[in-house]
Amino acid sequence: MPRLTMDITMSLDGYVAGPNMRPGVGLGDGAERLHAWAFGAGDDADSEVLEEMLSAPGAFVMGRRMFGGEGPWDNPAWGDVPWEGWWGDDPQHSRPVFVLTHHEREPLHKSDTTFTFVTDGIQSALEQARAAAGDRDVALGGGADVAQQYLRAGLLDELQIHLAPILLGRGVRLFEGLDVEAIGFEPIRVIHSQAVTHVRYRVVT
Amino acid sequence: MPRLTMDITMSLDGYVAGPNMRPGVGLGDGAERLHAWAFGAGDDADSEVLEEMLSAPGAFVMGRRMFGGEGPWDNPAWGDVPWEGWWGDDPQHSRPVFVLTHHEREPLHKSDTTFTFVTDGIQSALEQARAAAGDRDVALGGGADVAQQYLRAGLLDELQIHLAPILLGRGVRLFEGLDVEAIGFEPIRVIHSQAVTHVRYRVVT
Repeated sequence: MPRLTMDITMSLDGYVAGPNMRPGVGLGDGAERLHAWAFGAGDDADSEVLEEMLSAPGAFVMGRRMFGGEGPWDNPAWGDVPWEGWWGDDPQHSRPVFVLTHHEREPLHKSDTTFTFVTDGIQSALEQARAAAGDRDVALGGGADVAQQYLRAGLLDELQIHLAPILLGRGVRLFEGLDVEAIGFEPIRVIHSQAVTHVRYRVVT
Repeated sequence: MPRLTMDITMSLDGYVAGPNMRPGVGLGDGAERLHAWAFGAGDDADSEVLEEMLSAPGAFVMGRRMFGGEGPWDNPAWGDVPWEGWWGDDPQHSRPVFVLTHHEREPLHKSDTTFTFVTDGIQSALEQARAAAGDRDVALGGGADVAQQYLRAGLLDELQIHLAPILLGRGVRLFEGLDVEAIGFEPIRVIHSQAVTHVRYRVVT
């Protein structure tokens, strides 16, 4: 069966986003340093990993914060409606994206990406994404909160951590609120680059 | 110049020791899982890394907790004096060990290891260890508190993290109380094994 995979960049001190996520600063303060490896600071090894993670999945699942933060349907003070997320007019996913939210909404089409809003839970979102992905894997787009929900439910098959050689000191941690005895990891591949270390784990629950 | 290096095993959620460090449970509750790779659960790659980290240094520096916790000279309720640490009669260091402490004490000889107690600071301990090590590197034996002191002082040259694929959920974190803007890391080598991922960093301060 195709897998549910996740790629996430984590600082050495365990953060995957900075504090104060808001429109225009979707990953929080200081977090652009986390992702430098994917935006030109990396080398060929990083480019290959990036290409692999962007091309392999047949569909994506993401949380509402990853889609567009606490958008105006939660907080009208944030700007014009309809809120269209942080991804701009050409989101580059180019495959179906399923967004977990509590707020019903019609699908949003941006270039060749369609965002479908799922209100009946993580299992439903995964099933819809699997149906859309066919024989290909489904990738969990994040963020930490969504990762934790799928980890707790035992639904995540593989997690690739891009371990960024920086300290953030504050922000959002990937591994919190989990039953540490119930979740195990097996390293199955590691790729070195000068910018970041890519470690892929099989998740054992 | 020979380097000051450190090897430390860290969980995926950033812990290097469990809670409740005490005699007989020197690394705190649950932390034996951290070090399984070094005690038989690892493969040949792990054995080579272990051999390298044990054989390379010419001398060691460690904190008083790594030597023997809050020993009886701090807390007489803990047992017989003189407290001789957690290392037993054959500590296996077989090279000079310099222990940072606030309590003056005569050197302690155990088998072919001599523990020298240093009360005038981390710089002095490093200088004494360098003198003892000759052309070889000095290894910082831990724990987290000592690592942080040397990192803050800009004295640590290399840090090898053995990233254990487990979550501890609580305990002592390696990266706390540091100026996150002032300390950088460059990954210079990574070794994969089924038990743990060994990532060596050059420290840039």
